[in-house]
Amino acid sequence: MALRTAAQFLAGLRDNREVYYRGERVPNVVEHPELGVAARHASIDYELAENPKLRELAVYREGPSEGSGEYSAYYRVPRSSQDLLSRSKLIEAGTTEGATLVLLIKEIGTDALFALKRVLGRSGDTDGIRRVEAFYRRCRDNDLALAVAQTDVKGDRGKRPSEQSDLDMYVRVVAKRADGILVSGAKIHTSCTPYVDEVIVLPSRSMGPGDEPWSLAFAVPVATPGLRLYASDYLHGTDDPFTRPISTNHKMVETLTVFENVFVPWERVFYVDRPDLAGATALTFVEFHRFTAVSYKLPLLDAMVGAAIAIAKANGIDRAGHVRDKLTWLGGYAETVRGLTELAALRCKVENGVAYPDVFTTNMAKWTFAREFHQAIETLQDLAGGLLATGPGGMDWNSPEVRPVLDKYLSGAWPADRRMAIMNLIGDLTTRLYGGYQAILAVHAEGSMEAEKMAMFRAYDPSRSIGLAMRLAGLETNAGAK
Amino acid sequence: MALRTAAQFLAGLRDNREVYYRGERVPNVVEHPELGVAARHASIDYELAENPKLRELAVYREGPSEGSGEYSAYYRVPRSSQDLLSRSKLIEAGTTEGATLVLLIKEIGTDALFALKRVLGRSGDTDGIRRVEAFYRRCRDNDLALAVAQTDVKGDRGKRPSEQSDLDMYVRVVAKRADGILVSGAKIHTSCTPYVDEVIVLPSRSMGPGDEPWSLAFAVPVATPGLRLYASDYLHGTDDPFTRPISTNHKMVETLTVFENVFVPWERVFYVDRPDLAGATALTFVEFHRFTAVSYKLPLLDAMVGAAIAIAKANGIDRAGHVRDKLTWLGGYAETVRGLTELAALRCKVENGVAYPDVFTTNMAKWTFAREFHQAIETLQDLAGGLLATGPGGMDWNSPEVRPVLDKYLSGAWPADRRMAIMNLIGDLTTRLYGGYQAILAVHAEGSMEAEKMAMFRAYDPSRSIGLAMRLAGLETNAGAK
Amino acid sequence: MALRTAAQFLAGLRDNREVYYRGERVPNVVEHPELGVAARHASIDYELAENPKLRELAVYREGPSEGSGEYSAYYRVPRSSQDLLSRSKLIEAGTTEGATLVLLIKEIGTDALFALKRVLGRSGDTDGIRRVEAFYRRCRDNDLALAVAQTDVKGDRGKRPSEQSDLDMYVRVVAKRADGILVSGAKIHTSCTPYVDEVIVLPSRSMGPGDEPWSLAFAVPVATPGLRLYASDYLHGTDDPFTRPISTNHKMVETLTVFENVFVPWERVFYVDRPDLAGATALTFVEFHRFTAVSYKLPLLDAMVGAAIAIAKANGIDRAGHVRDKLTWLGGYAETVRGLTELAALRCKVENGVAYPDVFTTNMAKWTFAREFHQAIETLQDLAGGLLATGPGGMDWNSPEVRPVLDKYLSGAWPADRRMAIMNLIGDLTTRLYGGYQAILAVHAEGSMEAEKMAMFRAYDPSRSIGLAMRLAGLETNAGAK
Amino acid sequence: MALRTAAQFLAGLRDNREVYYRGERVPNVVEHPELGVAARHASIDYELAENPKLRELAVYREGPSEGSGEYSAYYRVPRSSQDLLSRSKLIEAGTTEGATLVLLIKEIGTDALFALKRVLGRSGDTDGIRRVEAFYRRCRDNDLALAVAQTDVKGDRGKRPSEQSDLDMYVRVVAKRADGILVSGAKIHTSCTPYVDEVIVLPSRSMGPGDEPWSLAFAVPVATPGLRLYASDYLHGTDDPFTRPISTNHKMVETLTVFENVFVPWERVFYVDRPDLAGATALTFVEFHRFTAVSYKLPLLDAMVGAAIAIAKANGIDRAGHVRDKLTWLGGYAETVRGLTELAALRCKVENGVAYPDVFTTNMAKWTFAREFHQAIETLQDLAGGLLATGPGGMDWNSPEVRPVLDKYLSGAWPADRRMAIMNLIGDLTTRLYGGYQAILAVHAEGSMEAEKMAMFRAYDPSRSIGLAMRLAGLETNAGAK
Repeated sequence: MALRTAAQFLAGLRDNREVYYRGERVPNVVEHPELGVAARHASIDYELAENPKLRELAVYREGPSEGSGEYSAYYRVPRSSQDLLSRSKLIEAGTTEGATLVLLIKEIGTDALFALKRVLGRSGDTDGIRRVEAFYRRCRDNDLALAVAQTDVKGDRGKRPSEQSDLDMYVRVVAKRADGILVSGAKIHTSCTPYVDEVIVLPSRSMGPGDEPWSLAFAVPVATPGLRLYASDYLHGTDDPFTRPISTNHKMVETLTVFENVFVPWERVFYVDRPDLAGATALTFVEFHRFTAVSYKLPLLDAMVGAAIAIAKANGIDRAGHVRDKLTWLGGYAETVRGLTELAALRCKVENGVAYPDVFTTNMAKWTFAREFHQAIETLQDLAGGLLATGPGGMDWNSPEVRPVLDKYLSGAWPADRRMAIMNLIGDLTTRLYGGYQAILAVHAEGSMEAEKMAMFRAYDPSRSIGLAMRLAGLETNAGAK
Repeated sequence: MALRTAAQFLAGLRDNREVYYRGERVPNVVEHPELGVAARHASIDYELAENPKLRELAVYREGPSEGSGEYSAYYRVPRSSQDLLSRSKLIEAGTTEGATLVLLIKEIGTDALFALKRVLGRSGDTDGIRRVEAFYRRCRDNDLALAVAQTDVKGDRGKRPSEQSDLDMYVRVVAKRADGILVSGAKIHTSCTPYVDEVIVLPSRSMGPGDEPWSLAFAVPVATPGLRLYASDYLHGTDDPFTRPISTNHKMVETLTVFENVFVPWERVFYVDRPDLAGATALTFVEFHRFTAVSYKLPLLDAMVGAAIAIAKANGIDRAGHVRDKLTWLGGYAETVRGLTELAALRCKVENGVAYPDVFTTNMAKWTFAREFHQAIETLQDLAGGLLATGPGGMDWNSPEVRPVLDKYLSGAWPADRRMAIMNLIGDLTTRLYGGYQAILAVHAEGSMEAEKMAMFRAYDPSRSIGLAMRLAGLETNAGAK
Repeated sequence: MALRTAAQFLAGLRDNREVYYRGERVPNVVEHPELGVAARHASIDYELAENPKLRELAVYREGPSEGSGEYSAYYRVPRSSQDLLSRSKLIEAGTTEGATLVLLIKEIGTDALFALKRVLGRSGDTDGIRRVEAFYRRCRDNDLALAVAQTDVKGDRGKRPSEQSDLDMYVRVVAKRADGILVSGAKIHTSCTPYVDEVIVLPSRSMGPGDEPWSLAFAVPVATPGLRLYASDYLHGTDDPFTRPISTNHKMVETLTVFENVFVPWERVFYVDRPDLAGATALTFVEFHRFTAVSYKLPLLDAMVGAAIAIAKANGIDRAGHVRDKLTWLGGYAETVRGLTELAALRCKVENGVAYPDVFTTNMAKWTFAREFHQAIETLQDLAGGLLATGPGGMDWNSPEVRPVLDKYLSGAWPADRRMAIMNLIGDLTTRLYGGYQAILAVHAEGSMEAEKMAMFRAYDPSRSIGLAMRLAGLETNAGAK
Repeated sequence: MALRTAAQFLAGLRDNREVYYRGERVPNVVEHPELGVAARHASIDYELAENPKLRELAVYREGPSEGSGEYSAYYRVPRSSQDLLSRSKLIEAGTTEGATLVLLIKEIGTDALFALKRVLGRSGDTDGIRRVEAFYRRCRDNDLALAVAQTDVKGDRGKRPSEQSDLDMYVRVVAKRADGILVSGAKIHTSCTPYVDEVIVLPSRSMGPGDEPWSLAFAVPVATPGLRLYASDYLHGTDDPFTRPISTNHKMVETLTVFENVFVPWERVFYVDRPDLAGATALTFVEFHRFTAVSYKLPLLDAMVGAAIAIAKANGIDRAGHVRDKLTWLGGYAETVRGLTELAALRCKVENGVAYPDVFTTNMAKWTFAREFHQAIETLQDLAGGLLATGPGGMDWNSPEVRPVLDKYLSGAWPADRRMAIMNLIGDLTTRLYGGYQAILAVHAEGSMEAEKMAMFRAYDPSRSIGLAMRLAGLETNAGAK
């Protein structure tokens, strides 16, 4: 199979998938005025291979034993620090083409598949491994787009899946048949579902005895009967390209992903009834996925730093001491995230030939990103000024009567058109719907800060530090082991 | 004259004012689908006096020498701490009725008038004082709504008004006539202009020799020929009451306020050609106005704390240690601002019978509010969860087909309807357009954090602290005076 | 009885109290080269009444029913905001005389007595009330100095007192006799014990069934047999007045306070076997005591702000933008603590005629103080410069050979002697032993930040904020009550 | 020449150097009770080569053209990332052997020599290069210990060297002779001067026309006539090994380093009268030296993290949520510094065969270290508890009478001896004199945070970020270049 083009990808979305948007069934996602924007944004993924500057990053080749074709590099199993760095660069490049919005139609899916390989590999479930491998090759060989549905709707957070009053609060097996299983329940926060080919479904937490029906992993095509996608309209209203230079053309859509007696043939069931694998799958997935996350945050951070420098110049305040201080802080913040991301790859652990980004460093990068992101927003808003909220809209800008007034009065150290272009970029990034969207992603996507801190706590190897402290205190080290 | 009703106020806006919105001239502000929302929000001011619980706060009486009527309490000149506390409570109550959005059609105007009284009083310009007093009585007696246009568009921030290549970058006198003056130029960030009766115009900075034409203060009716208002459409698109419970019904609108040869009769010119008064006016105005600002921030802070507690319960996470820690921080932040606001009134200085809130304490309250506001946003978003960005819209909620799915799957510790009501309140407050609007206000309205810090630096009385340090160091105090 | 003089107080310490310092029994505390410094520091308390400027604050009179004498104002039961403000001012004035180090020989004891009055009053234990009242009058009438031993050594923090392997980990009754009780165990962090007249002993935590023997409150003279004080030598070595202008002459000493079968006559047992009163006593005591705490922190904060301004001038950097920014932050921090302290008094609750500082506000003041104190240290060290660690000592300064070199080379914008006086004040306050002592006090004295946050969480009244949030969300309020 | 032993190094310090301590001339530094501790601490440097585990790091060999001997690896000119990582590891290992206190008798000197090589290399001053090379070989071949005197005493910070009223405020040439020059003036904050072989003297700032006499770099043996060292006694009093497990045995000493007509032969004058080289020397030196700095901070950070974990266990609070949160923060802080330090080496620039650590990343590491260090102190003090200030001293601990009381009552989850060992380690690291010393170093050594931020601002390459922002805003990139 050859790599697909963006057009082929979009053509592939024309099926009987059941998508709801703003209360109505969507007959055709690609032609829909809003979901179509999201689908076309995602399709940028398929253009990377055609971009001469990015082709090297975006495509890889495997020898005869793996077929003779070229594949999307997202599907390359990382074997080394260098592979992880390349994957990170690819994700960064894709997100840059996406104008700071991640494409996410292969990143997250391969994170899930790599995680499933590891978990099943460790468990020795050879049949499960075979099914994952087969699915992986199918996706890779057909250059498919993937979503991952992980977060369950959870119901009462104080109860396990089997204790919920409504058993559908976590996705579960409701029946087993000779040819497969039937699943019901719902996942939330599933990104890109309306415009991918396949949905991979993973458990979202550790399970225990009694949670067998909820302990499963599988994949289905989006157009499977009984699978219904309720898409969020959060970014509805971002249709003024003057004030929303990014979000008018770039959207991502999340769904409430409902399964009602969805049939999954055995070949697509990676495992079922395995409470012992559920927690490991959830954790291993996020270990990969947070590395994806910090990689795709980098263009956003760069755009923020660059916009901050530009607006300081456009406003004519770039020589003020406090402005330099804020720019330096912002640059230091962005570069710390970038540096730690790079280090997470350099410090990878290789297990059975697969390279895993260092868990502590990855989480440290993500936590650094998340915990200071709102300060970065504040800094940008501070440097930009009140025009973020009081400035003109696109209809003003395009009015022959109004425009001359704006040109005259909204100039600063830069003329009004250039100044407002940067101002509106900052507004889109930090203040309006897309800004709020990125803020929520910063706080919640790929796990909360609490989850990141917990991962850091668990992954920290205290032997060097506690050994030193004990030695300095004149004590034997071993008694103080973690 | 009697107090006006909301209907009377709205009726008064029907004149030939020149307002532009989204590129077009608005024939009638009150009937306009978006500006009308803002006008009706402002009209809440006129309902306060009719609310039995608030009447005491909202109305005051003056003895015979001042006429025998009742007046809106915003017009009461504060004489004591108690008067300042009452004014603060009134502003807080109005903003609470405004659902966290300040009404601002008398607050800011009286701040300006009190400031003009002080500045002209100190300067001994008896004629100017008389004109300010006359205008003040006219506004008070007719229960008028006022906007204040202060911030000039500024052009090149490194140059004085007289040095700009375009002399209109600061509002200025272009001609003097026997009956009055003609003014040109533009102000930016003027709040509520399209739906008030009068606009008061103040200088935005200190002026020096050569800046005479830009050193003026005056007032004109909104419907004055040559005065054109270009309204920002920032809150356009907040029309889904499910996801925007506040901003669908409550808006404030800012304008680019352009003067083109606007005629101002002498009786309405408070002063002109007075560089010596410009800086004092700007500073005195913000001293009053920042006290207004911290007063009107309190309902927003309360709503944020209350929503945080509610969503923690609705999500079923209110017993987690880190959640309590975040709630405590948020409450401590809000109450510190409240406490310092109260203290600013208690520590007032009375000068010539007028009570001025303590400058240092007022600015400390405002600075505390501003510098931690983004952390408060983050905290709320953290507690609320990803549904802020991935949840359903009003059209989903109102769809008979979709609603049962949402009811089933979006419940937490509270049922879905109650949980989503709080979720959407938080989304409106922190994440979508209104959230961005409040964030920009936090950072920029009534002056930036840098301006607040500068005011604190200037207002700090170092005698106690430096005296103690010098004594402890065994040194004479006087040599180290500031 | 008359008020005592400092000399009378010191004379009263000459008894057979059992004090250990640096491994040895101290025969006479007052004559001891280091403990004597602490005793004389404490004796400043007795000089306040003789200081004409402070007499008004330091002394109070009661009518005939209370005796006709004058009393130390620490003993005045606060009846109003004004009384609490006066008490706060007195504590502040005493600490200012103590050169930023609290005197604490009546503050804490009266905090304990007021708390006991309230707890026993609420419990209706009239006999206990009578004993507390009698002890209170004895202390007041004789102008006694008091320590409070509260924090138990605790042993295994995961176990209750009755579950400890060594039952002495909390102070307890080991025997009851007709004439009184015998107590054993130990308290830690007891301030000023070696140089006061009486020690009041309170429980440090809530108790439950089975904890009866540990649930007691009593008082004993310091010189009671079986009571042994092991004093910390933390401030040993602060004997160079050049580099330690404060701590050479001002010390406070804490003890490990050990009870070995100490006899307490019934008249001095306020209660025993009352697990129901233990927690309330501990909490009520800290509610008073944290108000004392924030009051005595104010001179320290003033000294830090003043020293910061002075060193910026002495170093010649006071006009730099970043320096002004740091000074403003520091002033804002100090004044926020001061303002909240004042508010805690203004917002007092009066119960049975006694005024209690507002719990939420008091804890907010203390938490604000504590959580930013280390940043204040950093700021001072930043402004002062490396001479804090690399500068000369007193022996250099006093050497005729070395001094001219120092005078020549250590001058800045101020001559060397003045600059070094401020430098050394900052070193004493932030960098050397006394600085570390104040830092530990900031973090731990009167409860940790976690304890303060817990108190804030409990004391927060959510009705206004949650009511507003529910109303804005269109929900009924009552369902969301805390 | 062979590598020297510690004994040989110490023997080499016995000369007629002129050192003053506590007001008196020190006849023999090594035998002095306090300076001898510092000298022996420094001598650990010479033991590294004898430690089998460290020999590989500590020694390097050069081929015949460079002589056939082995040299101390500090003298190895870094040629690659790997060399910089090895240098960093060596500095870290030496500091670990020094119990968190840097040895600094070769680190800083080689930083200075590498900087001089670069600056003179760029300037094309072949004679200067030759003299630096000759001096470098002399130091390397004889395994000498070096101090660097850079910071001038500065006098009035608002004036250039030539404008000072006392011309000695910056070290300067007072006379030129056929055989060399005479220099006068003073440097401050010079580390280790009393116990090294040579002092390298560098300018501390950029110079301009008229500053020629102050624009020089040279080296002299410590025992040169006219060179006088006034050592700070800051760490005097750290003689109780129980409470100061580190600082009793490990000290570093700084001097006021005074030159009075000191003769420097031409062969040791690297340059003179070169205002054009002064600023470049100062900057290039700190670029190397900040990499040294972040390397030597790592053991301190490790000790703090390890001590925090250990005391949480010893106190029995390690399972509390807020404790885990604090430990995670502390670990994240320490590891961010470590990670950025590693990256600074990995991102090095190679110029003329010499590898320079990346300036932006190095400064980011140092700034990260410095700006959060006080929070790390607070965290440790918070976890440790009030015993830091109220615990027993060594004389108590060693008293047969007192010790059993302490053993009984100071146990926690760990027995008293182990708990107090960790407690005292924390006290030494954060609270007493050594803690203050490290805090001052964090804020000031190798430049202040303001200097680090300025270096970051200058070193930041905005092309990627500003290019992205301009592209996203639809603007041409080049117009916005920095």
